[in-house]
Amino acid sequence: MFDLVIIGGGPAGLTAGIYAQRARLKTVLLEKQMVGGQIAISDVIENYPGFPSISGAGLMEKFEEHARGLGLEIRFADVADITVEDEVKVIKTSEGEIRAKAVIIATGAKPKRLGVPGEKELTGKGVSYCATCDGPFFRNLKVMVVGGGDTAVKEAVYLSRIASKVYIVHRRDKFRAEKMHQEKLESTPNIERITCHILKEIKSENNLVKSVVLEDMKTCEKKEIEAEGVFIFVGINPTTDFVDVDKDSGGFIKTSARMETSTPGIFAAGDCRTTPLLQVATAVGDGAIAAASAIEYVEEFETRAKNV
Amino acid sequence: MFDLVIIGGGPAGLTAGIYAQRARLKTVLLEKQMVGGQIAISDVIENYPGFPSISGAGLMEKFEEHARGLGLEIRFADVADITVEDEVKVIKTSEGEIRAKAVIIATGAKPKRLGVPGEKELTGKGVSYCATCDGPFFRNLKVMVVGGGDTAVKEAVYLSRIASKVYIVHRRDKFRAEKMHQEKLESTPNIERITCHILKEIKSENNLVKSVVLEDMKTCEKKEIEAEGVFIFVGINPTTDFVDVDKDSGGFIKTSARMETSTPGIFAAGDCRTTPLLQVATAVGDGAIAAASAIEYVEEFETRAKNV
Repeated sequence: MFDLVIIGGGPAGLTAGIYAQRARLKTVLLEKQMVGGQIAISDVIENYPGFPSISGAGLMEKFEEHARGLGLEIRFADVADITVEDEVKVIKTSEGEIRAKAVIIATGAKPKRLGVPGEKELTGKGVSYCATCDGPFFRNLKVMVVGGGDTAVKEAVYLSRIASKVYIVHRRDKFRAEKMHQEKLESTPNIERITCHILKEIKSENNLVKSVVLEDMKTCEKKEIEAEGVFIFVGINPTTDFVDVDKDSGGFIKTSARMETSTPGIFAAGDCRTTPLLQVATAVGDGAIAAASAIEYVEEFETRAKNV
Repeated sequence: MFDLVIIGGGPAGLTAGIYAQRARLKTVLLEKQMVGGQIAISDVIENYPGFPSISGAGLMEKFEEHARGLGLEIRFADVADITVEDEVKVIKTSEGEIRAKAVIIATGAKPKRLGVPGEKELTGKGVSYCATCDGPFFRNLKVMVVGGGDTAVKEAVYLSRIASKVYIVHRRDKFRAEKMHQEKLESTPNIERITCHILKEIKSENNLVKSVVLEDMKTCEKKEIEAEGVFIFVGINPTTDFVDVDKDSGGFIKTSARMETSTPGIFAAGDCRTTPLLQVATAVGDGAIAAASAIEYVEEFETRAKNV
């Protein structure tokens, strides 16, 4: 039996692995696809303190080397289900069953895509799903924000400090965001609201975003607007289907400040949990706390086992 | 008027500075003494993901360069008081008064020292105040833990996985820690409890800890015990006296998950707030969240100002 199984090899999972190895827990990290998670497909990251500018893949290589250097075992397996038998966590994976005293879920989340031409190819080349991450690359340039909810409106306001012009396009006639955020949207001179339109296509020049094609929902008329950046905020899906713990309405796992879920011995860290910010910096903090809590849980588990 | 004043130039404050600069807030960071905070006096740090091994000062230099590279202004000033006038935060400092829309407090915390011979000189040379940070350097060596509360007992158990032998010395006849932790202490074979004794002196050889001198509280008899490490857990003092927001019984600032304090527009991040773990990794997460919350607060502040 393992002391700890970490599910997910992004920043939160690798950090938890570093802390668990240092505490000499018998640990394995399970990764479905590719170590590094969502951030590994990011072209450049400039807000993880200590690295002024590095590729997402490059940073995650460093995290992986750090964790492996401490002896962390990483296995490639997809987790189907977690059950609890007498406090022991039984993890069903594509490579068989694994038993552990404690589990940290660090499976992350994926932004929803629009599915329009140009979107996939131009991701990281002008198309982004995170203003905090990529906004500063668009200083004094024009950007198009897609969406009508709180995130879209807040991020449009955030981008208005950096970009020369921010368009925000929404398919409905009204934005759904909080009134406070909408007021700010209306009062910011370099933000232009375009309602009742959908984004149909993203066009490029020299493999960089150049313009977007919008369609009027009523008349079906099309228009092309020049923009160097497209920020898409139409929702985000956490990878949490496989585990049965308390979640919020968006499917994100609810945790305490110590990263405890509703099931004792199962912890969650990073983007897959209800968190105010989805960043490498915050995932790292979560991972460290989740590991510290798991270490303590494993100690308690062993004490209880001895007392039986 | 500044958009944001950050108080404290450790990992939390510098991270908040990085995020605030990227959002183009007009920001100043105030540091009392030396950029880097407590961690800058740490010999080696091996658990900040991405840097397998680096000196505390070296890591903090990288943080400072990162923040300054984004244009962060750092001023050396000691903060005496913060008051709020019509939502504007008025910060009284040794270098005059500064006004800001939002404040992030990132002033950290300092471990209490015993004040015994050898302690100060041997800090980082065998004397430590953080098992998570320094424990792994004592693999298969003997360590002495000082203290009788929850932290001392938990950290002794943590160290027992790494060190060959852990002594824990407490001046009272009973430990104050939770029963669960005490049971674990008692059932761990390589932990030896020494009650009714105080640590009088730490001795060295070649500038590294070699042994400790304990004194029996009743008989005043002294004995010397060999140990390569001394971990002192007799309390920790947050630097929070200058600000009047809700705090816990230890003086740590209470915050929400978004790092909000009880005063709107004043945020707290890192070791100075009630947090489950005092680490660079967690301070960085806190700093990023506090900055994101401050950025949003500044937007709202501006919208309200326009509506008046």
